[in-house]
Amino acid sequence: MSSTEINQATPTQPSLDVARKPVTGISIGDYLLRRLGDYGVRDVFGIPGDYILSFYTKLERGPLNAVGCTREDCAGFAADAYARINGMGAVCVTYCVGGLSLCNSVAGAYAEKSPVVVISGAPGVRERYNNPLLHHKVRDFRTQAEVFRRLCAASAELNDPDTAFREIDRVLDAVARYRRPGYLELPRDMVGVVPDGVYCPKCTESKSDAGALAEAVAEAARRISSSRRTAILAGVELHRFGLQDQLLELAEGAGIAITTTLLGKSVVSETHPLFAGIYEGAMGREEVTQFVEESDCLLVLGAFMTDLNLGIDTANLDPGRCIYATSEQLRISHHNYHHVLLSDFLDGLVRAELKVAVRDLPPRPALVDATFELQPDAPITIRRLIARLNQALDSSTVVIADVGDALFASTELVVRQRTEFISPAYYTSMGYAVPAVLGAMTARPDLRAVALVGDGAFQMTGMELSTIVRRGLNPIVIVLDNGGYGTERLLHAGDYRFNEIQPWCYHRLPAVLGGGTGYEVWTETEFDAALSSAWADTRGMSLIHVHLPRGDYSKALERLAKKLSVRV
Amino acid sequence: MSSTEINQATPTQPSLDVARKPVTGISIGDYLLRRLGDYGVRDVFGIPGDYILSFYTKLERGPLNAVGCTREDCAGFAADAYARINGMGAVCVTYCVGGLSLCNSVAGAYAEKSPVVVISGAPGVRERYNNPLLHHKVRDFRTQAEVFRRLCAASAELNDPDTAFREIDRVLDAVARYRRPGYLELPRDMVGVVPDGVYCPKCTESKSDAGALAEAVAEAARRISSSRRTAILAGVELHRFGLQDQLLELAEGAGIAITTTLLGKSVVSETHPLFAGIYEGAMGREEVTQFVEESDCLLVLGAFMTDLNLGIDTANLDPGRCIYATSEQLRISHHNYHHVLLSDFLDGLVRAELKVAVRDLPPRPALVDATFELQPDAPITIRRLIARLNQALDSSTVVIADVGDALFASTELVVRQRTEFISPAYYTSMGYAVPAVLGAMTARPDLRAVALVGDGAFQMTGMELSTIVRRGLNPIVIVLDNGGYGTERLLHAGDYRFNEIQPWCYHRLPAVLGGGTGYEVWTETEFDAALSSAWADTRGMSLIHVHLPRGDYSKALERLAKKLSVRV
Repeated sequence: MSSTEINQATPTQPSLDVARKPVTGISIGDYLLRRLGDYGVRDVFGIPGDYILSFYTKLERGPLNAVGCTREDCAGFAADAYARINGMGAVCVTYCVGGLSLCNSVAGAYAEKSPVVVISGAPGVRERYNNPLLHHKVRDFRTQAEVFRRLCAASAELNDPDTAFREIDRVLDAVARYRRPGYLELPRDMVGVVPDGVYCPKCTESKSDAGALAEAVAEAARRISSSRRTAILAGVELHRFGLQDQLLELAEGAGIAITTTLLGKSVVSETHPLFAGIYEGAMGREEVTQFVEESDCLLVLGAFMTDLNLGIDTANLDPGRCIYATSEQLRISHHNYHHVLLSDFLDGLVRAELKVAVRDLPPRPALVDATFELQPDAPITIRRLIARLNQALDSSTVVIADVGDALFASTELVVRQRTEFISPAYYTSMGYAVPAVLGAMTARPDLRAVALVGDGAFQMTGMELSTIVRRGLNPIVIVLDNGGYGTERLLHAGDYRFNEIQPWCYHRLPAVLGGGTGYEVWTETEFDAALSSAWADTRGMSLIHVHLPRGDYSKALERLAKKLSVRV
Repeated sequence: MSSTEINQATPTQPSLDVARKPVTGISIGDYLLRRLGDYGVRDVFGIPGDYILSFYTKLERGPLNAVGCTREDCAGFAADAYARINGMGAVCVTYCVGGLSLCNSVAGAYAEKSPVVVISGAPGVRERYNNPLLHHKVRDFRTQAEVFRRLCAASAELNDPDTAFREIDRVLDAVARYRRPGYLELPRDMVGVVPDGVYCPKCTESKSDAGALAEAVAEAARRISSSRRTAILAGVELHRFGLQDQLLELAEGAGIAITTTLLGKSVVSETHPLFAGIYEGAMGREEVTQFVEESDCLLVLGAFMTDLNLGIDTANLDPGRCIYATSEQLRISHHNYHHVLLSDFLDGLVRAELKVAVRDLPPRPALVDATFELQPDAPITIRRLIARLNQALDSSTVVIADVGDALFASTELVVRQRTEFISPAYYTSMGYAVPAVLGAMTARPDLRAVALVGDGAFQMTGMELSTIVRRGLNPIVIVLDNGGYGTERLLHAGDYRFNEIQPWCYHRLPAVLGGGTGYEVWTETEFDAALSSAWADTRGMSLIHVHLPRGDYSKALERLAKKLSVRV
């Protein structure tokens, strides 16, 4: 791999030395900030509010960086993108009006395994006697905690100084271990409390069951060695758990072709000689679908078997020929092994020094090598836009796709490095992309983000460009304006008013936000010029408003709509 | 009362004739639409998405009106304001990405008793076999329903045709009865299902316990008659349950002065001869505080005893001298009566034909009658802005205040009719006002809304002006720009970066949104001119961007900050 390689989603366990050091004479708020730092968190997204002001004051005065957003849900999306790249992210808000505005972002992080720590203020423990109606309260003081218990891998209300440090450690450990959100509720009168005595952190490490591991590796190795048409289907967990090196060692050592799921797109460089395409069932390119489904031994590694990820229910994978290994389960054919860690299983396969029969890879789409030839004054279409953009991408770009055709079309972009592609491809929450740009570029200021976002999605969260301008970041945000909820028009044929939205002059937003440059384009020539200009202008944010012809869709979306329309 | 009186929050029980009619041959989706109509719902706010498209199609084709918003939380706030005025409101969204984006709005409706029906799509019952990873799913298929169970008075998942009609009735009945949100989850394969057989709705009516009622009324009447300094403290429930007429009958008949809580502001016209001011503990005007606290018999009617509502914990009300009656409890001095309905209790007091000693009302603030004299070129301040605005208000205006100084300053506005004032005065969620304008003017197109909203709050949801422009509404939105989270600067003294926000050119938004007129003002002359121009221009939305001097606050906020700063 080249030296500019993007080493993301690095393991986020603090070193054992740090973690085991006895702790004394430090407040609950300071301990939390210190532990976030131990896990590599350098920036905390959020919005202050009265129940969290004491903690915000500590945050602003301490070594971490507070990134104020315009809305809490945007802060949540930003923390999610930050976590995907950095290995852990954090968002900090006030009680209920702040916390309950985060539910959707945190649910998305749960669904797609993004390690986000939610820190919420709360009324002081001493304010709660006699259950008064303090402002922001909903049903009772525990309502918000009960909601987040449903949306997080672990949660704690830090009401007791005697257990607060241990609870913080437990929740952060779960976030790091399961790569899912955790919830910490911090009553405002606990922030400055220094617990008595000396706290000795306990470090627990997960271990594989040695017997199960050995047997599983041996069986998998036997199956792989005796197969004639092997392939890997790589998923997003390989990102999240930092297992890309092991994946490449296994694939390169044994000569196994790698396909990825949509959510796992960019888990390996798409210019790698063993890369064979994105598998999306009937939604994807036919030659890739065939390549995967004809395999007599398919290693499905760290992939979520989700509907959109697998082309709705159009995937045709015979479990009898699959080895399915994730952070949660290991299944070979129809039997399951318990207590086998994904990383140990991959290590075992690497050490088995396998060799498989060489397979001819599916032909690469013409796009990859073709040069883009401008058709002057032709209306710009999504397919041509992607082709032009593809030409511009380089190894210092991170592509962030919102949902709808922004996502489907971008499957055709060729990602040159690992983890250059971020999208909410499973949970598919509209409006993810613009806040995610903030999160991604905060995590990696050396990368430049290019975001693709539909007009409907932009109207939800696009004003988070405000914070992007405020922080002097220079992403290129491309608004795909097809005059409404275009994906729904295809999914659910008919001329419904509910798919129409107010047409905004998106390119005029820089004048409102006080920074950045707007472009409005209708033709290939205009798009080409705008993209070139934006690419060259690194001083600030560029916003390209692209008018797409009505009824213009990517191939992938057309294939998807055809499948989905049967049932919606 | 005059004939232009605003009759809002009318009781929303469908007539017993309608409710008891047997039902057959109608689908679950159609039944839900019909019942919403029975309860007076004419407009449904929301955003379509794939799990709710079938229902949206029915909605668009049926007699109700679908109002598309830019974001789900805005749709929730709009439905909340609509419900406060109309007696019931509804919001309709897709599963998880839609529903979980509503949590904060619905929590606010719960906290402040606004009768909002949440309708969420969901994966079809038949799609759930074997628990596949359908897109938008979080933890399991019931995650969203479990979250909303915490935030609603009643909830139902309409998974079974045999019980669906009864469940719809149960939830709508609870929404109407408790004036709190209800949750209906509608799997997409249930929308068109026609249940077998004939369904006979059951109507249940709440009744007071006759003995408890008689004794409570007698005791209250005795206390009121023998008191020398009686007063009423009227709360927001009198709005919600449509009891303003009874309140006036009681007050006018017996000659009792009326004060209101902050949340209850405008429950009676503030020009009524018996109106004595807003009681907010130490936060309010001293003469009103004294008037209320010196009462030897205080009727607290339909009021939430909340912290902000009562000036944090600065209120000094002796329970031994209070008669405290709400939809949930009746307490006289230190003892409680159960099963006494608020309306029956008020009726009883009216029939008792009480007479009390006449009290001198506290002097009205100078503002009410004074004419506003322009100080040309003086920087406009919040106090002067309110004074100027006060001059303009008439009986066809509804004032909507966001939180922070928008709320506190607007306590000084004189509301000429009932229910001309809407604010989230207890839950205090920033960003309520602009979406609430959409809801209020949809419910009452004959009223014109004037919104007061801080810059921080505007950045959260102000882009919902998009829908206001799209629907051709003509509110006047006043953005109070003090360069950040001004209330927090006072609450938590210190020069913190986290209270700063990006300065937007709010007045330029009409150019982005494609409609409306923007004004930027710094001085009294400019504000005066902008307000006059906006008032005269009824063609579309007006947005007045008011630059306030840094450190400019209303008197009420200064009083509040003084109290709060002790503890934050």
